[in-house]
Amino acid sequence: MSAPATPGIALDAVDTPALVIDLDPFERNLARLMDSIAGRDVRLRAHAKTHKCAEIARRQVAAGAAGVCCQKVSEAEAMVAGGIADVLVSNEIVGERKLARLAALARHARVGVCVDDASNVDALSAAARRADVQLDVYVEVDVGAHRCGVAPGEPARALAGHVVEAPGLRFAGLQAYQGAAQHLRSMAERREAIARAAEAVRVTRAALESAGIDCPVVTGGGSGSYPYEVDSGAWNEIQCGSYIFMDRDYARNEWGAPLPRFEHALFVLSTVMSRPAPGRAVLDAGLKASSVDSGLPQLWNREGLIYTRASDEHGVLEIAPEAQAPALGEKLLLVPGHCDPTVNLYDWYVCVRGGVVEALWPISARGAIY
Amino acid sequence: MSAPATPGIALDAVDTPALVIDLDPFERNLARLMDSIAGRDVRLRAHAKTHKCAEIARRQVAAGAAGVCCQKVSEAEAMVAGGIADVLVSNEIVGERKLARLAALARHARVGVCVDDASNVDALSAAARRADVQLDVYVEVDVGAHRCGVAPGEPARALAGHVVEAPGLRFAGLQAYQGAAQHLRSMAERREAIARAAEAVRVTRAALESAGIDCPVVTGGGSGSYPYEVDSGAWNEIQCGSYIFMDRDYARNEWGAPLPRFEHALFVLSTVMSRPAPGRAVLDAGLKASSVDSGLPQLWNREGLIYTRASDEHGVLEIAPEAQAPALGEKLLLVPGHCDPTVNLYDWYVCVRGGVVEALWPISARGAIY
Repeated sequence: MSAPATPGIALDAVDTPALVIDLDPFERNLARLMDSIAGRDVRLRAHAKTHKCAEIARRQVAAGAAGVCCQKVSEAEAMVAGGIADVLVSNEIVGERKLARLAALARHARVGVCVDDASNVDALSAAARRADVQLDVYVEVDVGAHRCGVAPGEPARALAGHVVEAPGLRFAGLQAYQGAAQHLRSMAERREAIARAAEAVRVTRAALESAGIDCPVVTGGGSGSYPYEVDSGAWNEIQCGSYIFMDRDYARNEWGAPLPRFEHALFVLSTVMSRPAPGRAVLDAGLKASSVDSGLPQLWNREGLIYTRASDEHGVLEIAPEAQAPALGEKLLLVPGHCDPTVNLYDWYVCVRGGVVEALWPISARGAIY
Repeated sequence: MSAPATPGIALDAVDTPALVIDLDPFERNLARLMDSIAGRDVRLRAHAKTHKCAEIARRQVAAGAAGVCCQKVSEAEAMVAGGIADVLVSNEIVGERKLARLAALARHARVGVCVDDASNVDALSAAARRADVQLDVYVEVDVGAHRCGVAPGEPARALAGHVVEAPGLRFAGLQAYQGAAQHLRSMAERREAIARAAEAVRVTRAALESAGIDCPVVTGGGSGSYPYEVDSGAWNEIQCGSYIFMDRDYARNEWGAPLPRFEHALFVLSTVMSRPAPGRAVLDAGLKASSVDSGLPQLWNREGLIYTRASDEHGVLEIAPEAQAPALGEKLLLVPGHCDPTVNLYDWYVCVRGGVVEALWPISARGAIY
């Protein structure tokens, strides 16, 4: 798809629907995270599944990130092609075709991957040997999210031992991400969930230590909880992704010290395409312009306009009686409900500063789900 | 993104997640709809927003469709580029840049568009005159969906009169789509909603007639209701889209004569990427592989496996105690919750017959939201 804007034009002249980054808050978010871990014994491995954009990954590395993580081999390929030298696929990769691509990528960058199954370790080892490369392998531990991962302690130790013995693989540490904690609304709930996850990490590290297995890295943590991970001392790498953009779902969380409050920096620009009744306006941004899996988008800086209904290509706004009603053709900004799957709908970021388009960045891993 | 398969390989060798069309039920769906309106005073204008694929549009026209409809100018551009000669944008188009593109397209095909606002009619007329083309214009009537559209009767007549007077425009008829009726679960509710919509159409046609305005076409109707529209005699064109694929949301409807029961023909192929616990499996298909706006995807032909949770790149399956548990690396088919926004996530259809890949079709209007 062609880009909906060119540098130098006003935001209001951008074709819609368009995915907009407001560069000032975006850059403040980048800096705010690095500031928040300055002097701590932890590094950032920024999650590229959020933005799927090598331009942004390069900015994260320039700001101090050790590298990025991805969820898919094709995402990792896009990041390496974009100049990122250290990529962790923070996920299990299964299937011979995918493993061969992952191993091939390790000729061009430092590549890591997660495991939670011994037969998968064997398949990874075979792929690495065929490609004559070494892969960093992290044992994923289920620290409370109950998605992938082996149980903490002895099961994780046993799998790590299997990795240590496997040719072509290097045991790099533990993947310990408590994804289910990120959107627990109260800070107390998140703190408590991370405390339990930290205990699971400690039990596992002790089991590794007693088996004489060195564990260089414990990686995990997300934008909604990472200061708790850092304070616990159990992690030495964090995987924040959403902090660069934030979204409406994260905004529903309770925020306060020690959690930095990041700013909304990602928006969907839309046009009022119909004004069929006094209390109703219809936007040209529906389900194909903003993912609603975590709730509807929200109008930005327009009191009294409520996005109440999304169909494939329409968003229905309710206009409160006291609100300033939008005109036909007016352009309005929306904060997406969930940034990651919304980004995956677009081919371009329209990057804006002070209401003027400064750059277009291709979303180079859009659709990279393989 | 490169295609996840090549013709001739087995379905089980396709990389995942992949969007799969099972060609036998797909072709039966194409024929079943045409059979159901044979001999009736109505034609099909198939909705291309469902499939976003010129290959499929050409098959629909070959099967007897008069043309296609689209929701976006960029979708219409993709259809005309793919050889479709008659395209209706069944939606309001606002903004000078989009109107100029719409008018330019009318040099290459018959192009229609909907209106619900007099100032938009003027803008359309100006764009048509600048491009030296004639556009077919349909007045959209709100027949119960309460999205876009003018009120039935006199307001619709007044806007049609405005179109009749506008240079460069031809009043082509009424857009009367009761989208809100498509997923009313009981047939009685849908029949009743369409009866009310038909009454709104009759009132409007009477107003046009008394003003001496000819109304060649009344277009509308969807896969969940169209036999009611046809039986009412108020419509002479239907806009079914989902009938080619069906989805889980449509499957939840009550079906029976006069509504043909279409078959599931669209699937997401996914791989079991983790078997972390006896009762749990994790698929590599989450929010970026299947839109969940209308509910989670459903396992196809695998009793006792329930897709219970979607995150960005994971789908968590619950395995019932009596079910055949899936193996790590096993490939499973899912029926998407909602076909249209799921299609928009992919670049390719993997077309399969009898378990073998027969063709790859590019989703040429994927991401065409402008």
